[in-house]
Amino acid sequence: MTPLWRRVVAEGLGTGLLVTVVVGSGIAAAKLSPDDVGLQLLENSFATTLGLAVLILMIGPVSGAHFNPVVSAVDWWLGRGTGSGLSARDLAAYVPVQISGAILGAVLANLMYDEAAVSWSTTERAAGHLWLGEVVATAGLIVLIFALADSGRAALAPAAVGAYIGAAYWFTSSTSFANPAVTIGRAFSDTFAGIAPASIPGFVIAQFVGAAVGMGLLALLYPRAAQAADAVVIPHEVTTGASK
Amino acid sequence: MTPLWRRVVAEGLGTGLLVTVVVGSGIAAAKLSPDDVGLQLLENSFATTLGLAVLILMIGPVSGAHFNPVVSAVDWWLGRGTGSGLSARDLAAYVPVQISGAILGAVLANLMYDEAAVSWSTTERAAGHLWLGEVVATAGLIVLIFALADSGRAALAPAAVGAYIGAAYWFTSSTSFANPAVTIGRAFSDTFAGIAPASIPGFVIAQFVGAAVGMGLLALLYPRAAQAADAVVIPHEVTTGASK
Amino acid sequence: MTPLWRRVVAEGLGTGLLVTVVVGSGIAAAKLSPDDVGLQLLENSFATTLGLAVLILMIGPVSGAHFNPVVSAVDWWLGRGTGSGLSARDLAAYVPVQISGAILGAVLANLMYDEAAVSWSTTERAAGHLWLGEVVATAGLIVLIFALADSGRAALAPAAVGAYIGAAYWFTSSTSFANPAVTIGRAFSDTFAGIAPASIPGFVIAQFVGAAVGMGLLALLYPRAAQAADAVVIPHEVTTGASK
Amino acid sequence: MTPLWRRVVAEGLGTGLLVTVVVGSGIAAAKLSPDDVGLQLLENSFATTLGLAVLILMIGPVSGAHFNPVVSAVDWWLGRGTGSGLSARDLAAYVPVQISGAILGAVLANLMYDEAAVSWSTTERAAGHLWLGEVVATAGLIVLIFALADSGRAALAPAAVGAYIGAAYWFTSSTSFANPAVTIGRAFSDTFAGIAPASIPGFVIAQFVGAAVGMGLLALLYPRAAQAADAVVIPHEVTTGASK
Repeated sequence: MTPLWRRVVAEGLGTGLLVTVVVGSGIAAAKLSPDDVGLQLLENSFATTLGLAVLILMIGPVSGAHFNPVVSAVDWWLGRGTGSGLSARDLAAYVPVQISGAILGAVLANLMYDEAAVSWSTTERAAGHLWLGEVVATAGLIVLIFALADSGRAALAPAAVGAYIGAAYWFTSSTSFANPAVTIGRAFSDTFAGIAPASIPGFVIAQFVGAAVGMGLLALLYPRAAQAADAVVIPHEVTTGASK
Repeated sequence: MTPLWRRVVAEGLGTGLLVTVVVGSGIAAAKLSPDDVGLQLLENSFATTLGLAVLILMIGPVSGAHFNPVVSAVDWWLGRGTGSGLSARDLAAYVPVQISGAILGAVLANLMYDEAAVSWSTTERAAGHLWLGEVVATAGLIVLIFALADSGRAALAPAAVGAYIGAAYWFTSSTSFANPAVTIGRAFSDTFAGIAPASIPGFVIAQFVGAAVGMGLLALLYPRAAQAADAVVIPHEVTTGASK
Repeated sequence: MTPLWRRVVAEGLGTGLLVTVVVGSGIAAAKLSPDDVGLQLLENSFATTLGLAVLILMIGPVSGAHFNPVVSAVDWWLGRGTGSGLSARDLAAYVPVQISGAILGAVLANLMYDEAAVSWSTTERAAGHLWLGEVVATAGLIVLIFALADSGRAALAPAAVGAYIGAAYWFTSSTSFANPAVTIGRAFSDTFAGIAPASIPGFVIAQFVGAAVGMGLLALLYPRAAQAADAVVIPHEVTTGASK
Repeated sequence: MTPLWRRVVAEGLGTGLLVTVVVGSGIAAAKLSPDDVGLQLLENSFATTLGLAVLILMIGPVSGAHFNPVVSAVDWWLGRGTGSGLSARDLAAYVPVQISGAILGAVLANLMYDEAAVSWSTTERAAGHLWLGEVVATAGLIVLIFALADSGRAALAPAAVGAYIGAAYWFTSSTSFANPAVTIGRAFSDTFAGIAPASIPGFVIAQFVGAAVGMGLLALLYPRAAQAADAVVIPHEVTTGASK
């Protein structure tokens, strides 16, 4: 197993770059395609689909490439009975660094586009139908990740998770944040992908509700998924230099 | 083999989410890109290509991820001589749940976008050239799925079926429904991807004609495809936790 | 080896559907996005990238999925010394059926979109820089296909060839026909993807020049590529039902 | 090992065609979508994502498909202690031919689009936030390539590098040149993808800074990545005809 400090660095870096991809491509899209918000979202989702897949490929062998407190929490929860998956100590280390990384990723995107390092987003995203969108988005993400792990296909997770988020930008009304760390990070940029700080709690709560719904669906579809918690930490079919 | 009740839940969930993807991304596209219907279809096809691939990955190991009464019916038909593939009892369980799931999926999309839970579509889709489009779309889908199964490449089905439907949105005049359950579900939303209830019978008949054409082509190209019916129920190269 | 009649049916069907994809998606794009030709080409290239990849997956195990007289001719030429690849008799059967299939594919696209079954294209495509585009497009296609075969990666050909043509729609000035059969077929539809009959000879000559350039590059890069001719007929790593 | 002359030809051809893809699709996009710069970049990034992936597939088994002096230099640097990776003599041969190829690739794109063979770009790209973009873009590219090599997944590099650059067109402010040879080549075309000659030094310096940052991150995440230098020269899991 890779040492915890290295996994924590990896989670911070990966979550940060994920927010850089989301916020940065959103800034570019809004600047370059000012006349059509749909085209902006198409550009933003194109970049996110590819960028998220690449980041999971890049970081997966080190830390599992969760980039998401909800994914880490579910991994810990499912594996707690069997001693597999993320330990409580790991979880306590992953989550703060995911959040910190997300904030720094937004700052990096702002700086690359010559904006102020921090500008609080003024985009309100608070309504029942948007929270329903987050519940759906997060439930689907949880089912996808643990279904792949349970069926021995964790090597497909990079492309699959990227594709899932790219589609969910479109089919959920909330444009699928599905990630508390990324939600917090996106509050630090008053641009296309931003979310007003006051809208964060509603989104995060909806994401945890979605995670619970996802675990319920997993229990129906993949009754042994709990034993796959290990494969979400680091996909087993990847041979890493670090573990040679 | 996964128990029938679990497979039925999986088919209902998967077909439902497929309609959520199709209808939901159609609503978003029409709202966000009001000036160009082609751009709306590009956004809708982008989301469907990725979303359908992901749903097949997610559900495939449980039920085969048919999401489509025509696919289930062909699987039963091809395998009936050899006792492989879907049994008649399985088929009788799959089809109603696929249709029910599709309807609920449209309702979910409506609710996520703050529309009435149900609004009957007023988009008429009834003309000879559209029915020809459905025949072509469905025939191609059947050939693709069973060609992959027959040649031991069922693991490629998620990406391939997603890509096929994404292309067929464009190259068929009917935008490729190719699925009776999805056709019915799409009647429950008076939005971009809808179809007027009165247009359903023509589309469904064309889809079954297309399935017959597809089976004819399969007999020419892959004479042993009937023996691949089992691989369409659950791809053999997938090791599922449920069947360990 | 699959019997010749079955391979010929496969080549005719596949080439026909390829033209249906190209012409059909071109008609849809021009109708739905009337204000921006670039958006039309983006829609057309999106559909072609996915559709071509899927057709090669569908037909590859039967006939090698050439769909292209230039590819078949190069395969015969490279393999003639060692008795591998397409025989002269095979080549004489493949080419006419590829051309006939291409024409029928254009007719099918016209009919699906409620156009006259045949309308001669009036889009002139005749200029030195366009012919240079076809030389580049075809040379790249030949290098790609035989490079994959020579390095034991023919299983990647479906996605790679689809991606290549999708990119070449954009980076070549001719929008990359790169295929004499498809060129002829596209003359039968006076729509977005059409080519005036008088422009065909120039394009076809440029395509054969490109094939010669491609073989020259192959000789430099992959000196043993000639021995890969067999793998282009039917990829070796595919186990087909027909050859069990 | 493939003889050096063959690898050098391969690097020149591949880098040249990469610039042809970037510049050519940029010209097409600007001509066909004159009203929306974002749409132009979407078309340009679509073509580059697919075209770059295909070129790495095509050339990888011959030379490793670096197409980039920064990648070649890092490969030499990381492997110099263990005698693996590119030798100093190899590096001295790769870099000039990458640059020459890039220039010829721009000329080819110009000629295909009936422009003057050479027109110096007048697009100034010189500002701190753009250089920051190049640092980020190049650092990410280096981490990605060597992370894949170190974890035995070099076979994923074609799709992953294409996807990375396609995303980075959007999430970095500089549209991610990330390559000194391509930067120089793009100066030879006064079109969408061009860069004024006076802006080259700043970009190239930023790219080398990015490479250093990337190596620092690699040391943190993949401490044994230096031993993967060999796998970047020619991916080990590829069996090439040339080395049989």
